[in-house]
Amino acid sequence: MRCEVLAVGTELLLGQIVDTNSAWIGEQLAASGIDSYEHRVVGDNQARIVGALRELLSRSDAVIVCGGLGPTQDDLTRDAIAELMGVPLVRHEDLAHQIATMFRARLRDMPESNLRQADVPEGATAIPNPLGTAPGLVCPVGDGKVVYAVPGVPYEMQEMVRTHVLPDLLRRSGVAACIVSRSLKTWGTSESALAEMVAHRVRALDATGNPTIAFLARGIEGLVVRVTAKGATEAEAAALVDAEERELRAVLGDLVFGVDDETMEHAVLTRLRARGWTLGVAESVTGGLIGARIVNVPGASEVFRGTVGAYATDVKRSVLGVTAGSVVSEEAAREMAEGARRVLAADVGIAVTGVAGPTEQDGVPVGTVCFGLAVPGAPAEAVSARLPGDRERIRQFATISLLNLVRLRLDALGR
Amino acid sequence: MRCEVLAVGTELLLGQIVDTNSAWIGEQLAASGIDSYEHRVVGDNQARIVGALRELLSRSDAVIVCGGLGPTQDDLTRDAIAELMGVPLVRHEDLAHQIATMFRARLRDMPESNLRQADVPEGATAIPNPLGTAPGLVCPVGDGKVVYAVPGVPYEMQEMVRTHVLPDLLRRSGVAACIVSRSLKTWGTSESALAEMVAHRVRALDATGNPTIAFLARGIEGLVVRVTAKGATEAEAAALVDAEERELRAVLGDLVFGVDDETMEHAVLTRLRARGWTLGVAESVTGGLIGARIVNVPGASEVFRGTVGAYATDVKRSVLGVTAGSVVSEEAAREMAEGARRVLAADVGIAVTGVAGPTEQDGVPVGTVCFGLAVPGAPAEAVSARLPGDRERIRQFATISLLNLVRLRLDALGR
Repeated sequence: MRCEVLAVGTELLLGQIVDTNSAWIGEQLAASGIDSYEHRVVGDNQARIVGALRELLSRSDAVIVCGGLGPTQDDLTRDAIAELMGVPLVRHEDLAHQIATMFRARLRDMPESNLRQADVPEGATAIPNPLGTAPGLVCPVGDGKVVYAVPGVPYEMQEMVRTHVLPDLLRRSGVAACIVSRSLKTWGTSESALAEMVAHRVRALDATGNPTIAFLARGIEGLVVRVTAKGATEAEAAALVDAEERELRAVLGDLVFGVDDETMEHAVLTRLRARGWTLGVAESVTGGLIGARIVNVPGASEVFRGTVGAYATDVKRSVLGVTAGSVVSEEAAREMAEGARRVLAADVGIAVTGVAGPTEQDGVPVGTVCFGLAVPGAPAEAVSARLPGDRERIRQFATISLLNLVRLRLDALGR
Repeated sequence: MRCEVLAVGTELLLGQIVDTNSAWIGEQLAASGIDSYEHRVVGDNQARIVGALRELLSRSDAVIVCGGLGPTQDDLTRDAIAELMGVPLVRHEDLAHQIATMFRARLRDMPESNLRQADVPEGATAIPNPLGTAPGLVCPVGDGKVVYAVPGVPYEMQEMVRTHVLPDLLRRSGVAACIVSRSLKTWGTSESALAEMVAHRVRALDATGNPTIAFLARGIEGLVVRVTAKGATEAEAAALVDAEERELRAVLGDLVFGVDDETMEHAVLTRLRARGWTLGVAESVTGGLIGARIVNVPGASEVFRGTVGAYATDVKRSVLGVTAGSVVSEEAAREMAEGARRVLAADVGIAVTGVAGPTEQDGVPVGTVCFGLAVPGAPAEAVSARLPGDRERIRQFATISLLNLVRLRLDALGR
C-alpha cells in the first residue's frame, strides 16, 4: 500500500505558513506500515491540483489531500477532485443542514458561500467534521484507488485522519484494521546508548514484525521510543503494546519520564500532587521559563505557588536571601531553593542559576549551570552541569534538566 | 521565471523532521518576484530524486534541491544530478583540500567518506559553504535551465540561497541584480484595517511594480508589512525601500514596533535603556513567560531586574502586597505593578493578572486579563482586556499585549 500527501495552499508556497500537516500525516502513515514516497505542495489552482493528483495516482494507491476545503472561491479541492473523477458536485442537504446548525450554535450568520462546503463529488462520501464546518471526503477514483480530502486546520485534519482515513486505508490494504501506538518518552541518554539498550527487543520483534519499535529524536525534549502494534481488534493491538511496554520499561527504567502527550513538567506535578506537596521556583538564567512551562499543565494551580525570576544579582540577595559570594555556585543554588520555599511558602523549592552567555560572568564560563533542590525534612542539595549550545538552548536545556532532577529526586524518596 | 523547490530526505517523509526550508525558500523567491508553483519532498532514493527533477524541470526554469549533500551513502543528490545531466562526478581537489582543512581546524579526524562532498557533476560549479563541509552546486541542465543544490541544514542553506542562488536566478531572469527587503512589524490592528490604511500606497506602487508591498500574518506576533525593491545596485534598491518606509510609517504611526528581526521585547528594552530605567515584572496568569521573553534580548541584564511569578493568590498578597479583594482586577494589577517596582527595586513595574481557563475564577470569565503599569513620577495605571483563544494562546496574547502597552506608554512620556 502506497499513499502520498498533497498539501494545497498558495500561502504554503509563499512561505507564509510552514506545512506541518504533511510531516504529521507521514508519521501516522509510517506508524501504520503504509509507504509514502512523496509529499507535494501546490497553490490554490484547480489545474495544478488536478495535475498533481494525476501524477501522484499514476504511481500510488491513494493520496491524502490536505487543505482547500474552505468556503471561499479560493478553495478548489472539491472542484479539482470532481474534475479528476469526471463527475459533477452534488449538494448534500444533510451536510448543508449541519453547517447551518453549527453557525446557529455559535450565534453567527452563515454566509451563503459556506454551503459550498456541503457539495460532494458524485460517488464520493463525506467524512463528518465534529470540530469545524468543512466535511472531509473519501473519493474512489477508479482502479481501486482513492483520494481523501481533509481540512488544512491541523486539529480538524488530525481527527479525521485518525478516525477515518487511516482505518479506511488499512481496510483497503487488507491489513488487520486496528493500529495502536504508544510513545515512551525518555530523557537523559544518547540515541546510540538508547538503541543499544533495546537492541535485543528490536531483534526479537524483527522475527514477527509486530509490534515494531521506532526511535524519534525530540531535540531538547529527549528521545522517544515508539511501539506500534497491529491487531484484529483494538484490544488485541493494545495488549501487544502493553506487553512490549513492560519489556522496554524493564531495561529503560527511570529514563522513561512519560507516555504519549505527557511532558516533563507533567511528570513533576503528578509526583508532587501525589504527596500533597506544593512547589516554589527560583530562577535566574531562565528568566521565568520554568514557571511558564509549569503553568502549561492543566491543574497546575493545586501545586504551583509561583516563581521568583531573580535576574539581577542583588535581587537574588534581597528577595531570596542569597549570601554566597558568587551567585553562580552550588551554594547560591541551594540558597535560592531554600529562598523559594520560604518566600513562596512552598513545600519544595527548586532553583537554577547559571551563565547563558554570550560572555562569561565573574570568571564562570558560558554554559555553567547550578541546580538547587530543597525537599521537606532534608538539607538543600545542589549539582552543577556544563550545558552546550547558544543562549536560548542553554535556557531550554537548564529548564528540562532541573525538572528531570526533581522527578528523579522525588522518586528516590520512596513511597 | 519559474523556480520549484525539491526537499530530499526520508526523515521528512517519515515526519521525524518538519520541512521548514521549503517555506523559507518560497518566501525568498516570492520577495524576489520569482514564481514558484510546486514544492516537493522525496526520500533518499536516487531514482525518485531524478524522476522528481525531470518532472519539475519539464514545467519550470529552475529547481532548488535542498538536502542530500552530506557525506554518507544515503546522500544521493550529487549522484542524482549527475545522472540527470548524463555526466560523471569529478573530484575537485580544491574542495577536498578545504574540507580537510575544516576538519583539522576543528581538531577532528576526517572520515574518508567526507571527500565525497568534493565530487561535482562535470560541468557544474560549486558554491562555497563557509559554515559547513557540504559545498552547494549550480548545475546547468540544458535548454538554459538550472538545478541548484543546497544543504539541508537551515543556516547553511539560507546563506547559500541569499548570497548565490537568488542573485544567479535574478541574473538569469534578466532582472536588475539587487533585491532589498525590509519588514515593518506592526501590532494592534487587523489585517483588513492594515490593508485599508496602506491601500493608497499599494495602488501607487502598482504602476511601477517596484518596490512592492506584501502583508504577512505572524499570528500572535502581529502583522508584517514587507517592502521589497529591486535596483541595479544595493544602494539603489535600499533607497527605494527607505523612501517607501517613510511613506508607510506616515500612515502606520506607532502601530510599527520594530523592523526585521526586532521583537516587541526588544522595542521595550531599547526604550527603557534610552532613559536609563530598569524594569521589574509581576505576573500571574503567564507564570513567568514575560520574564522568559525579556531575557531573550541580548544585554537584557542592563535593564531587567527580574520577575515575580505570583501564581497562588496568597503569594500575590505576601510577596507583592496586593490588598484588592479580587486578584483578577485592575486594582490588583496596579498593586502588582507597584509591588514589582518595590520588591525588585526597579524604576518601572509592569504586571498582568487574569484567567486563562479552562474554567472561570471567582466569577471572572476565561480570557479576562488586567494589565498594570507603574512608571516613575506617576500613579500606577491599569487596563483590562478580554482575550480570545485557549489557555496557551491567552498567555501568549497577554504577554505581547502588556509589552506593547509598555512600549506605547513610554513613547507617550515624550523625550
